[in-house]
Amino acid sequence: MKKHNFNAGPAILPAPVLEKAAESALNYEGIGLSVLEISHRSAEFKSILAQAEELARELLEIGDEYAVLFLTGGASSQFFMSAMNLLNEGDLATYVDTGSWSAKAIKEAKVFGEVEVIASSKDKGYTYIPKGYAIPENSKYLHLTSNNTIFGTQFQEWPETEVPFVCDMSSDIFSRPVDLSRFDLIYAGAQKNMGPAGTTLVIVKKDILGKVERTLPTMLNYETHIAKSSAFNTPPVYAIYVSMLTMKWVKETGGLTAMAHRNEAKAKLLYDAIDASTCFVGVAATEDRSLMNATFILTEEKKGLADQFLADCAAAQCVGVKGHRSVGGFRASIYNAMPIESVAALVEVIKVFDGKHG
Amino acid sequence: MKKHNFNAGPAILPAPVLEKAAESALNYEGIGLSVLEISHRSAEFKSILAQAEELARELLEIGDEYAVLFLTGGASSQFFMSAMNLLNEGDLATYVDTGSWSAKAIKEAKVFGEVEVIASSKDKGYTYIPKGYAIPENSKYLHLTSNNTIFGTQFQEWPETEVPFVCDMSSDIFSRPVDLSRFDLIYAGAQKNMGPAGTTLVIVKKDILGKVERTLPTMLNYETHIAKSSAFNTPPVYAIYVSMLTMKWVKETGGLTAMAHRNEAKAKLLYDAIDASTCFVGVAATEDRSLMNATFILTEEKKGLADQFLADCAAAQCVGVKGHRSVGGFRASIYNAMPIESVAALVEVIKVFDGKHG
Repeated sequence: MKKHNFNAGPAILPAPVLEKAAESALNYEGIGLSVLEISHRSAEFKSILAQAEELARELLEIGDEYAVLFLTGGASSQFFMSAMNLLNEGDLATYVDTGSWSAKAIKEAKVFGEVEVIASSKDKGYTYIPKGYAIPENSKYLHLTSNNTIFGTQFQEWPETEVPFVCDMSSDIFSRPVDLSRFDLIYAGAQKNMGPAGTTLVIVKKDILGKVERTLPTMLNYETHIAKSSAFNTPPVYAIYVSMLTMKWVKETGGLTAMAHRNEAKAKLLYDAIDASTCFVGVAATEDRSLMNATFILTEEKKGLADQFLADCAAAQCVGVKGHRSVGGFRASIYNAMPIESVAALVEVIKVFDGKHG
Repeated sequence: MKKHNFNAGPAILPAPVLEKAAESALNYEGIGLSVLEISHRSAEFKSILAQAEELARELLEIGDEYAVLFLTGGASSQFFMSAMNLLNEGDLATYVDTGSWSAKAIKEAKVFGEVEVIASSKDKGYTYIPKGYAIPENSKYLHLTSNNTIFGTQFQEWPETEVPFVCDMSSDIFSRPVDLSRFDLIYAGAQKNMGPAGTTLVIVKKDILGKVERTLPTMLNYETHIAKSSAFNTPPVYAIYVSMLTMKWVKETGGLTAMAHRNEAKAKLLYDAIDASTCFVGVAATEDRSLMNATFILTEEKKGLADQFLADCAAAQCVGVKGHRSVGGFRASIYNAMPIESVAALVEVIKVFDGKHG
């Protein structure tokens, strides 16, 4: 029996994508070879890669002034690679600190330039999104994390800025329409909303590159991958293939506007149940709640019942609901591929638990 | 109908591995989730990763003084990462240049230290393995490429050296027993003999690390990945899983000694047919021929028949036989997973072609 998969990442993928991915692992489009054993220089893989780029461009309405790359190493590699490609020694970069991932990005940028953290929600355990800060005009860029998987907060609007804008969208890419023209560099590990673990999407405005003086190792220079259309060396074929299938599914199910509506409906269903309960409270400030990762905890007097609630979830086939160790409590990740029926199954567990213990 | 897959990489994988990989992409071990959507912190993936490490250790007889890592970015990333982790500015590294991949490794090392190329086979189009050179005692390490996928040459014995020994084994790892104690750092992209594209094996003697003065970005420091057992950030779950299945298959089919015997028999069958023909000649010096990639060309007077030979290969379901653009002619990659029956199918094409045109 198929589980309700609330994992934070690697995370749920659409059922038809998994079916096609499994079929192609045996025999890709009937060619007599698995997609796992075709050359990255083959016509078949070139077509997969071209489709993946085209789908990303179409879904996010990415203009020709941007390159679309499929790299490896996750957002964790983009933390340093973005700074390494954009900052000369002594240059200033501005960061908004909204949680663990922002903090890691800040740490890596300091290897290559000066970093100013202009706003942080660390004072309240990263439970909100800071607002109303001034961005130094001499910054080479502003960096923020659009959705904070661990704490369950999400930027609902972008700060106004004149400096180049770099954004880690690992956990909400393709979950809602985005005004691409606001950004200069977007990166995202695939394993939340885009596909399986193993590839990293990078969308970069070409004219911000080529301005640093340091010698970049070939593989760490975005321009290398732009010149070779993400195939300078052997790309992660299968991860790109399954990401392509996932983007195709997003397109076929109505694109990003339809996706955003479904994500809003799923999040409302879940947050309403949390708010209506007497046992549970949401972790994030209401206006900054993530539509991707809902974090919630038991009230002080019910704290001892955490294991019971997780057991109830497991009995209802809801897996991955345990909260991240740095927040505790519970986290339900309800990415694009999560059907509302699965959210309803979890909501039912919450309601029954609340009826019994509330 | 299943093709005879002579691709140079990504390359053929064992049929039972592909079957299991496809099954797990739908439902991993009956848990009701695809292996593509399980958390990298789950008990299931922790077990996959532990098994992958254990199998690598068992097959190659790797001692505890070495760490075994599954990273991303391919050998192309190890070209700079090895130098970045081992060389201080001004330090000397010694390289043997046996082809395109060596040349790329040399280029990247120059970003971080001084490089001396003590031997090269470039003078004869990289068709042989240089021998009889002195390794400067003040080198921080010696680097070589064990098997040259493009040119079809392979080290049959290792140079004697007192300095740390770094080796790119991308295209012959797990193809034969190796005296691990001779090496300090081995790296290999998975997509030839170890698994699908998307992960990179690194075997590193722990005591050679931690000696450089530069500040390394967290993700580029081997010690980060050692401390977190290859799970500092989200690893490429599926690529590691399929690599684990492939290593398990190597073990179950007799380990590296049995594998080497099969590889020798396959290579002998193919090279004997090339040598017995009047139309074809081998590219590499006989004593340096690769057991993994056999490169061969048509004789001068038969050159015009290249397309005909490739058409004959295709008609016999033999794919991936076209040579690399920098060598021309033909290349048959006959990695571990290639059954001798497939080699026999290609040999039959060679014999019939030679009978007709020789």
